[in-house]
Amino acid sequence: MPKPRVGIIGATGYSGQELIKILQNHSKVSLTLVTSRAEKGQALKDYFPFLPFRQTLLFSDVDVKEIKEKCDLVFFATPSGTAKELAPILLEENIKVIDISGDFRLSTQEDYQEWYGYTHPSTQYLNKALYCLPEINREEAQKVPFISNPGCYPTSILLPLIPVLKTLSLNTPIIIDSKSGVSGAGKKAHIDYTYCQLNENFSAYKVGRKHQHIPEIEKYLKKWSLKTTHIIFTPHLLPINRGILSTLYLPQVSEEQYMLAQKALLDFYQNELFVKVFSHKLPQIKDVAYTNQCHIGFSYDKKNQTLILISVIDNLLKGASGQAVQNMNLMLGFKEEEGLC
Amino acid sequence: MPKPRVGIIGATGYSGQELIKILQNHSKVSLTLVTSRAEKGQALKDYFPFLPFRQTLLFSDVDVKEIKEKCDLVFFATPSGTAKELAPILLEENIKVIDISGDFRLSTQEDYQEWYGYTHPSTQYLNKALYCLPEINREEAQKVPFISNPGCYPTSILLPLIPVLKTLSLNTPIIIDSKSGVSGAGKKAHIDYTYCQLNENFSAYKVGRKHQHIPEIEKYLKKWSLKTTHIIFTPHLLPINRGILSTLYLPQVSEEQYMLAQKALLDFYQNELFVKVFSHKLPQIKDVAYTNQCHIGFSYDKKNQTLILISVIDNLLKGASGQAVQNMNLMLGFKEEEGLC
Amino acid sequence: MPKPRVGIIGATGYSGQELIKILQNHSKVSLTLVTSRAEKGQALKDYFPFLPFRQTLLFSDVDVKEIKEKCDLVFFATPSGTAKELAPILLEENIKVIDISGDFRLSTQEDYQEWYGYTHPSTQYLNKALYCLPEINREEAQKVPFISNPGCYPTSILLPLIPVLKTLSLNTPIIIDSKSGVSGAGKKAHIDYTYCQLNENFSAYKVGRKHQHIPEIEKYLKKWSLKTTHIIFTPHLLPINRGILSTLYLPQVSEEQYMLAQKALLDFYQNELFVKVFSHKLPQIKDVAYTNQCHIGFSYDKKNQTLILISVIDNLLKGASGQAVQNMNLMLGFKEEEGLC
Amino acid sequence: MPKPRVGIIGATGYSGQELIKILQNHSKVSLTLVTSRAEKGQALKDYFPFLPFRQTLLFSDVDVKEIKEKCDLVFFATPSGTAKELAPILLEENIKVIDISGDFRLSTQEDYQEWYGYTHPSTQYLNKALYCLPEINREEAQKVPFISNPGCYPTSILLPLIPVLKTLSLNTPIIIDSKSGVSGAGKKAHIDYTYCQLNENFSAYKVGRKHQHIPEIEKYLKKWSLKTTHIIFTPHLLPINRGILSTLYLPQVSEEQYMLAQKALLDFYQNELFVKVFSHKLPQIKDVAYTNQCHIGFSYDKKNQTLILISVIDNLLKGASGQAVQNMNLMLGFKEEEGLC
Repeated sequence: MPKPRVGIIGATGYSGQELIKILQNHSKVSLTLVTSRAEKGQALKDYFPFLPFRQTLLFSDVDVKEIKEKCDLVFFATPSGTAKELAPILLEENIKVIDISGDFRLSTQEDYQEWYGYTHPSTQYLNKALYCLPEINREEAQKVPFISNPGCYPTSILLPLIPVLKTLSLNTPIIIDSKSGVSGAGKKAHIDYTYCQLNENFSAYKVGRKHQHIPEIEKYLKKWSLKTTHIIFTPHLLPINRGILSTLYLPQVSEEQYMLAQKALLDFYQNELFVKVFSHKLPQIKDVAYTNQCHIGFSYDKKNQTLILISVIDNLLKGASGQAVQNMNLMLGFKEEEGLC
Repeated sequence: MPKPRVGIIGATGYSGQELIKILQNHSKVSLTLVTSRAEKGQALKDYFPFLPFRQTLLFSDVDVKEIKEKCDLVFFATPSGTAKELAPILLEENIKVIDISGDFRLSTQEDYQEWYGYTHPSTQYLNKALYCLPEINREEAQKVPFISNPGCYPTSILLPLIPVLKTLSLNTPIIIDSKSGVSGAGKKAHIDYTYCQLNENFSAYKVGRKHQHIPEIEKYLKKWSLKTTHIIFTPHLLPINRGILSTLYLPQVSEEQYMLAQKALLDFYQNELFVKVFSHKLPQIKDVAYTNQCHIGFSYDKKNQTLILISVIDNLLKGASGQAVQNMNLMLGFKEEEGLC
Repeated sequence: MPKPRVGIIGATGYSGQELIKILQNHSKVSLTLVTSRAEKGQALKDYFPFLPFRQTLLFSDVDVKEIKEKCDLVFFATPSGTAKELAPILLEENIKVIDISGDFRLSTQEDYQEWYGYTHPSTQYLNKALYCLPEINREEAQKVPFISNPGCYPTSILLPLIPVLKTLSLNTPIIIDSKSGVSGAGKKAHIDYTYCQLNENFSAYKVGRKHQHIPEIEKYLKKWSLKTTHIIFTPHLLPINRGILSTLYLPQVSEEQYMLAQKALLDFYQNELFVKVFSHKLPQIKDVAYTNQCHIGFSYDKKNQTLILISVIDNLLKGASGQAVQNMNLMLGFKEEEGLC
Repeated sequence: MPKPRVGIIGATGYSGQELIKILQNHSKVSLTLVTSRAEKGQALKDYFPFLPFRQTLLFSDVDVKEIKEKCDLVFFATPSGTAKELAPILLEENIKVIDISGDFRLSTQEDYQEWYGYTHPSTQYLNKALYCLPEINREEAQKVPFISNPGCYPTSILLPLIPVLKTLSLNTPIIIDSKSGVSGAGKKAHIDYTYCQLNENFSAYKVGRKHQHIPEIEKYLKKWSLKTTHIIFTPHLLPINRGILSTLYLPQVSEEQYMLAQKALLDFYQNELFVKVFSHKLPQIKDVAYTNQCHIGFSYDKKNQTLILISVIDNLLKGASGQAVQNMNLMLGFKEEEGLC
């Protein structure tokens, strides 16, 4: 049986690059198409010198007919705004789609106006895309043609939070202080992302209910029937290439509740390959960089009745392309870790 | 009139190095003694090649008689544990003391047992040391012979917090998520502080009411009659040499209270040289690195009724040696910014 | 047929860690033993949290009987000084050995006294170890039980140099200016390798015919019958985790010779998977970091008749563990790239 | 007597920023004008938040009349191409000029066509500008109205080289392998200078007689009557904010010549404040970063008869703005170190 053929729309960015690395060594699929408007015609192996000389693909322009001829499944590794037009067209051609951008994560036209600043042309597809964190809802992924891949911050936040909120019901908002490596911002030739601006520096951004990942997190907390759905979220920019660490503060948690939460976390992920919960040490970014893992640690401030959860992921892998391939493996019926260990 | 003569006990560490840089160019004092047990006899200019060849001091061993002969004032730039024995002896010889370590910041024997793990030999001196953040209580500094210099994290936290808590009275603990550059840990030949361990990495440490700066912060919030004194504090280690950013979350703040807090902050520091409050932009570490400044920004999450304060300092300057010289200038009656601009 | 069983002596260092990463996913061998005196008894997956929970190996102490029972081949990932005693014992037990340290790279007792500062106990084995750069002498590797894996700097230098020196005969020494990431120094809790010492810093070390890789390079230039064998070598320490860039200057090269050298380089490696020669761009470390590749570029200063070669490798992979696995694949008759793409 | 009034043309770049830091604390001059086309009208203290609130200057557009009214001396901190038009106009208005760009370092129209790619409009001024490295030709600076400030690489190369070449006469070209921090490239919103491109990376650029600092170095070696004037120069880009290390290889130097060269170096700079020669240790960038110093070390490869010189500077200070202020102090008759210690 021939291998499924997969394509990448927008392959020159950081997520695209990671997808190429994973897919060219994936034993169950063939990478048959990569697109880039700016680089069309150029050899992939010239643009990405880490690729072997035997890699012969060229970047194509985006062409629906060509995509249809060459691909059974495509990934969108584009910035927000491209998939919203093109994904529906491909789906109607019976091409499976995994969108790594945010174009199909929220629910309504109003949400997109408010948080992404654009008018969404395909709102009927918002409800057709499965938002899939494999460790949470993997059984649904096997039946769908269209997956909206979770954002990097939301992945780092929902994985530690869901098992805890299935156990506890909180009365106060959860405070989330996240720190991300620079690749999280995408590949941008802007003075704010130059080396001398960011090296030996650290800052917060979009402080105070401004970041577009807030409604995504709150939507899925609600959707998955968790009683606490309010969050205060502050992202910060770390002077490293890749990795996210999120520190979550859950106030008004009694010691008894803390014991339950701890057990819930450890039990929930005990058989997972890509999510590890540590009870006696704290996670650090270097242990998950260049892997598809999420590590979770926790502590309890008894005096202040506050549970603290800490999680780390590689924003480009578990927070983007790694999780997207995990989702592809589920969609196509392969072993979930195929190509990811 | 001869210039006051100052010495540095423990001058080879990071705080000591910054003190030397400041004091050798300070026009109102003479640097006359620097001690280091490990380097005694070595020329300062050989150990610190950035010093001019004309700098002729040698490192001395710690000798009370020599200190008495050569110094009118000494700084302790030692790790915690040295000043607690030696500072009282020097004070009794009428030598002024500024302790940059934590040995005189807390109040009781019990505090030192719990948070520093040692038995304090000189508890009667705990109440004699003035804990001085110049912008808060500078008028007291001019009359005392003994100053306990605030810790780096507490400086970054108390400066934004005090004006706000003078205005607001909160019912819930304040959540403080701080991130510090590596020099904050001191100069240590330990595998945990090696380059490959920390570069491209980020992690939290002492999570959950474990860090010795917690009682220091709570003590002075109480002492300065602020009604809210409970904090949840999580320190993190940033892959940069110097700088601290603290993100503070004050829950259950109404919009009206937020307006008052904002005004209080802007008013409180409007004439200060070293503390700046920005209402339309967020602070970043690179703007204060290598300076004695503290920059403060803020935002408000209206939906969640939460005030967010963000502050940045250079941990070695405003968080240690810079503030110590500011305190020295106050003690000795100089212009407060002498040597610091 | 059961898979060959491999062990790693000294598995907690940086080379050991990379070997574990490669070997645990290698489809043709089983990783059956890892040793560490300091960590014996500890679970591998606790020491290296990136490993999956299903990895059940524990660190063992070094025990010849256990090694004999469990391993068909062992890697020495120890600092220089361990393999020189133990490798001969294992070889006599018919265990294949690949030594990543420098213990079997030089030829004589005198060399080890001069460059490594120790008395070599097993000089008869110096001539039995095959020094193998696969792209240069891979055909020999298939017949030997004992390989001495090239050093990181020598790999980055010999790969660009050998094809050129097979073509040109120079009259003057070659000048080699190399720059290495910090992991090249091994895992050391020394103040010189702490974060604040190396971050935002850069320096040369062992300048002027002092580095132990000099005799290694000169020995193999001679052994492989190249006429020019004198080098001037200056290593420098780069503030990055991994990677080496070597800049080589070959003086008194005529334009005609330059054309021949360029052709020789391009031809020599044209069918190689892990060595790429670029004629129209310069190599950079980020393209080879986390890969087993070597990239080579070149330029010519016509006015000064000087050929400039530039090469980059990942010091831990092509410069150590990656090349060691490439050598293992050759020894055991597997595809050379097995586990390395 | 009123203080001389100084202005900065192009004050938003890295050299401009350093000039502002130095000049606002300089006790002998007043900073009266800063220009920036892009930021005109904005307050300096808003653009550079490290400045005190009491700093009230606004950025001006470039206007000759205003410059004439407000300035006795101006610095050009612009990229190459601005001063070549404007400096002659200001000089004719009797305004002193120090050009930090390369616009007046070379000698002829042909040089500018070849190395800078532009037609120079004011070649008659090329011979009027004094190229001044204070430690080499400070006595000339006191009499001139126009200084062309040396480039960053040339400063790091000429300072170690000149005393040696006054003593030795070499027959072969000197090989110079230089490594610069990123600020050396100026402030550029280009993908090649983004954080993720440069962090954890290292590469050479303009290899093989391509860099515009080559003719500058060779011109002044010749002008100062040194017999050896041929250099092979390879610049590299270091992942640090600031600093240059240059490694120089002088072949065919006998041991006797080496002894003479060493003595010449040590003697030449023995009374200098900003240049230090170390005979028993190697220089490193961190010792000179944020200072106006140059540190020089050396070694000798006896077997290969090669002298190795190593120098370090801060490219923005001794390599640009620091040296420019040193030159200003000379021009205006102040103490040479005024504002620089």
